Amino acid sequence: METAQPLPMDRDRCSVARTLQFAGDRWTLLILREVSFYGVCRFERLHERLGISRAVLSERLERLVEEGIIERAPYRPQGERARSEYRLSPAGEDLFPLLVAFMRWGDRYRNDGRAPVIVRHRGCGEPVDVLLTCAAGHPVARDDVEPHLGPGAGAVRAERR
Amino acid sequence: METAQPLPMDRDRCSVARTLQFAGDRWTLLILREVSFYGVCRFERLHERLGISRAVLSERLERLVEEGIIERAPYRPQGERARSEYRLSPAGEDLFPLLVAFMRWGDRYRNDGRAPVIVRHRGCGEPVDVLLTCAAGHPVARDDVEPHLGPGAGAVRAERR
Repeated sequence: METAQPLPMDRDRCSVARTLQFAGDRWTLLILREVSFYGVCRFERLHERLGISRAVLSERLERLVEEGIIERAPYRPQGERARSEYRLSPAGEDLFPLLVAFMRWGDRYRNDGRAPVIVRHRGCGEPVDVLLTCAAGHPVARDDVEPHLGPGAGAVRAERR
Repeated sequence: METAQPLPMDRDRCSVARTLQFAGDRWTLLILREVSFYGVCRFERLHERLGISRAVLSERLERLVEEGIIERAPYRPQGERARSEYRLSPAGEDLFPLLVAFMRWGDRYRNDGRAPVIVRHRGCGEPVDVLLTCAAGHPVARDDVEPHLGPGAGAVRAERR
């Protein structure tokens, strides 16, 4: 997909850039892996499993709450004071294909195709992948796409066309 | 997808974590957006478009070359000294679905569904998305998947099963 002239859009609106405002960070995505793939939802377990400092973990969780990706829910372990656990919001749930895209690329190019974890379709047991597909249902190859300005491209730059 | 007991695998082999070794960085993914979506392949253009410092851009490009994501090819602008341009390797090309996953999530949750850029299937003009699909061709919902240990899970931990 080569475009001689990149699209005349307001670059601040780019959806990739906006997603990267919170997701362009290794720890954040590892936290989301734990919550989304493995259902780990408590601070102590995240701390143990990731080997991340408490300060960094707190800060990243706070950020994910502010960004509307995870939600805090209270729980009280027996005989202890109340704590929080973390659940994905609907927006957080929708990051799942992105996490699978990270995983499948790593399977191919960082683990010689030998996946450490296979995400299987519960219905039929077959492994799951993310596929480029168009709204008409065609599987799409990478060279078979073309970027166009969309309705959110921004008025200023769009006028310059 | 909740698993009471996270999988007994060697966590260092996690394909998500291995991909994040280079892709868990905002600038790196913005550089890949430029190269992959817009075919921008020269240092000066990347510097202009991203507003990134030369030092950071150099460092990130160097890293992407070392990681085998992009390749350097020489070119000589008329009357100037030889320079390099950057092309995606096959591994870099295969990051495309990941970039589309970032974009589509941002369209939905950071641009109210009004996409600034629509990636269209050249064949039929319909917009492209990444879909979770199993190897049998079924579309898969997020709740309909289950993680299992795969062949690359690592001997030590696998023995503990």
